[in-house]
Amino acid sequence: MLKELRERVLQANLELPKYKLVTFTWGNVSEIDRESGLVAIKPSGVDYDVMTADDIVIVDLDGNRVWGNKKPSSDTPTHLELYRQFLDIGGIVHTHSRHATAWAQAGEDILALGTTQGDYFYGSVPCTRKMTPEEIAGEYEKETGKVIVETFRKRGIEPKEIPCVLVHSHGPFTWGKNAFDAVHNAVVLEEVAYMNFVSHQIRPNIGSMQQELLDKHYLRKHGVNAYYGQ
Amino acid sequence: MLKELRERVLQANLELPKYKLVTFTWGNVSEIDRESGLVAIKPSGVDYDVMTADDIVIVDLDGNRVWGNKKPSSDTPTHLELYRQFLDIGGIVHTHSRHATAWAQAGEDILALGTTQGDYFYGSVPCTRKMTPEEIAGEYEKETGKVIVETFRKRGIEPKEIPCVLVHSHGPFTWGKNAFDAVHNAVVLEEVAYMNFVSHQIRPNIGSMQQELLDKHYLRKHGVNAYYGQ
Amino acid sequence: MLKELRERVLQANLELPKYKLVTFTWGNVSEIDRESGLVAIKPSGVDYDVMTADDIVIVDLDGNRVWGNKKPSSDTPTHLELYRQFLDIGGIVHTHSRHATAWAQAGEDILALGTTQGDYFYGSVPCTRKMTPEEIAGEYEKETGKVIVETFRKRGIEPKEIPCVLVHSHGPFTWGKNAFDAVHNAVVLEEVAYMNFVSHQIRPNIGSMQQELLDKHYLRKHGVNAYYGQ
Amino acid sequence: MLKELRERVLQANLELPKYKLVTFTWGNVSEIDRESGLVAIKPSGVDYDVMTADDIVIVDLDGNRVWGNKKPSSDTPTHLELYRQFLDIGGIVHTHSRHATAWAQAGEDILALGTTQGDYFYGSVPCTRKMTPEEIAGEYEKETGKVIVETFRKRGIEPKEIPCVLVHSHGPFTWGKNAFDAVHNAVVLEEVAYMNFVSHQIRPNIGSMQQELLDKHYLRKHGVNAYYGQ
Repeated sequence: MLKELRERVLQANLELPKYKLVTFTWGNVSEIDRESGLVAIKPSGVDYDVMTADDIVIVDLDGNRVWGNKKPSSDTPTHLELYRQFLDIGGIVHTHSRHATAWAQAGEDILALGTTQGDYFYGSVPCTRKMTPEEIAGEYEKETGKVIVETFRKRGIEPKEIPCVLVHSHGPFTWGKNAFDAVHNAVVLEEVAYMNFVSHQIRPNIGSMQQELLDKHYLRKHGVNAYYGQ
Repeated sequence: MLKELRERVLQANLELPKYKLVTFTWGNVSEIDRESGLVAIKPSGVDYDVMTADDIVIVDLDGNRVWGNKKPSSDTPTHLELYRQFLDIGGIVHTHSRHATAWAQAGEDILALGTTQGDYFYGSVPCTRKMTPEEIAGEYEKETGKVIVETFRKRGIEPKEIPCVLVHSHGPFTWGKNAFDAVHNAVVLEEVAYMNFVSHQIRPNIGSMQQELLDKHYLRKHGVNAYYGQ
Repeated sequence: MLKELRERVLQANLELPKYKLVTFTWGNVSEIDRESGLVAIKPSGVDYDVMTADDIVIVDLDGNRVWGNKKPSSDTPTHLELYRQFLDIGGIVHTHSRHATAWAQAGEDILALGTTQGDYFYGSVPCTRKMTPEEIAGEYEKETGKVIVETFRKRGIEPKEIPCVLVHSHGPFTWGKNAFDAVHNAVVLEEVAYMNFVSHQIRPNIGSMQQELLDKHYLRKHGVNAYYGQ
Repeated sequence: MLKELRERVLQANLELPKYKLVTFTWGNVSEIDRESGLVAIKPSGVDYDVMTADDIVIVDLDGNRVWGNKKPSSDTPTHLELYRQFLDIGGIVHTHSRHATAWAQAGEDILALGTTQGDYFYGSVPCTRKMTPEEIAGEYEKETGKVIVETFRKRGIEPKEIPCVLVHSHGPFTWGKNAFDAVHNAVVLEEVAYMNFVSHQIRPNIGSMQQELLDKHYLRKHGVNAYYGQ
């Protein structure tokens, strides 16, 4: 069932250790088949070096397992909430990559300081508010998804334009048009998280880059007037 | 004698360079066979790339060598003190991993700032007090074990819940249900030591994470209501 | 056409991932044949691991493509402006290498703090001013080249003596007598960018090294009295 | 001539890239044959991956080349001054390893903050004073050796006990009983340079470790009462 999707989700998961975004099993990738509304996702706590396409679990958007004999990632309800609310996204990645996580722990947005960020993300990477004791005690993983969605809605951020978020005291989620694209964004996020950390050490209280330069770089790679690539 | 234990301790020792936790011979792993009260431990100052299971030394809980022709690690009395006092631990690791050691040198606890730490350790990683001149001049390595035990007893910390410590001006010790589990915790400790360093650079005077979130993450992986993994 | 030049430019581009100066396709190398005035440059957005010499594009100094079926790097007009204005340079590299980019984001020069820098660069690495909204909205990539040239002219810096620059809120460009030499300088720049970051953390407000020492090291490797190497 | 010595010096030089202590050709190793007073040293500016034992140069203590057809390292007069003044050393290493160099650029000693340093170095790693314009304009490389010797004499440091130094605005030199031992100390120095940097970031104005603990660790590995190793 959805064998090609499971194979792709497996490969996308294996890119996490390749890009040094995860230690042990601290990450997961999923992809949705929008037509059927089914999501393929990494099983919970299975090592990357023994994982096969048959370990990938298929769930529906309500979280029911419809294929596979493993338990899906414990973060599955977060993924599903994002797929339900952010309708143009096709793949999601969660990691504890070192520098993005360090920013999440500090509870701070990653400001756009340069064109590396501007080439991919149209502004700052937002950090969510802390979750309430009620949210944590309730359906925690689903509530994590809801606080992400709230952050984007309240700040008027378009999920396609800023395909990532820092969950406060936790770590990053990224997304994209499919699983591989979401992994790509996870690599970019970790890279800008590191660079922005160093820039802040060199110049504390540094502010965001010029809006004009951000527009130029983001729009030269995205949208109708893009002219980067072949 | 205890060949399987020695083989396992060898393999666990070899994981230290694999995870880049040691330079040269700066680390050691042991495991105890609780039934016989015998401990298998790395020999002193032997290179990892020539070490075999026959180099692993077996000592009893009083430090008498009962098998092997090498001298055991000079840190053996520290391991033994921990095995005598912390009765549910089965394996111990000592390293000078870079960031955990940097915190030990600074003499500071590693506060729980995020869920990466909360998934494994139920709170801050404690740093011991400085040792007294008398302790240093006496049975130094055994006293090192005693000051670790004192730290846990005085602060009311359960060794199973925080399976690691920073020895002041020295470096980390970690433990677990066996040698491999202790190595796993050594990797986690180094990872959170790095992330927390970066978070502190981004936001000096950052405080611990919410207790509710720490409870949620620790208990979702440990104890009777755990639901992580297969 | 210019097959040898294209092959060399391919190999120089492949050195960027080898020296860990680039993530994905975030970098480009070019070389000019001064006799014909033709420039070989990396194609836009092509992965390093599939790139061949036939993907390398040949353009003239006005930016007309004279050979190849790929689009040249979107940074081509910056390269061309530098070749037109800095007449003794033969190769150019652009990367987003982590620490040089962090300094560019901070908008700060990299002061000469030690002989590592002095062995290659005869002083501080300058950071350009911010570009104006008009420059950004206009022929942006060409204007980037112009602001680099302006920086060198206004400060009286000889491009041969300081073969690199930080473009504000963007990243580094380096050059040299050919493509490989420019890559060599990109490696040096990243190395000194890292070291100077650490030195600044250890001693904030550190000043430049002694001029006499800078003279000694630069001139022992460059110019008529050089005595380094075979 | 002295083929075995040249072979050993070659191998010791090749350890520098292996331990990531050098970029390009930024380092050199020598060893002295005390009986004949001859020194084998790396040639100047030759790449590590093409270097053979026949490229290693033999010089006498006055700097005359007595074997080989390459020019010896430009740092040769520094090595020779150290061999002439520090009579128990047998091997010398110079690198621009990143963190030791960062401390040298900052012009600061590396205080002994923990037992990693105390296991090898009996106290702080000293940083030399700045050289005078006259020293720099004169026999610069020999004067570099002289300022190192002055630093040890004035501070009453025994070169055997602290087998390394930071040359102000330049980088580290380390030594040992032979070339391999000097490389070993270069690895240790880079390791403690990194850790001490991080400790200083965590706790600015941190002071040296207790003298008693330093004594304990240094003397458990060195001198008549050592009990570390087999």
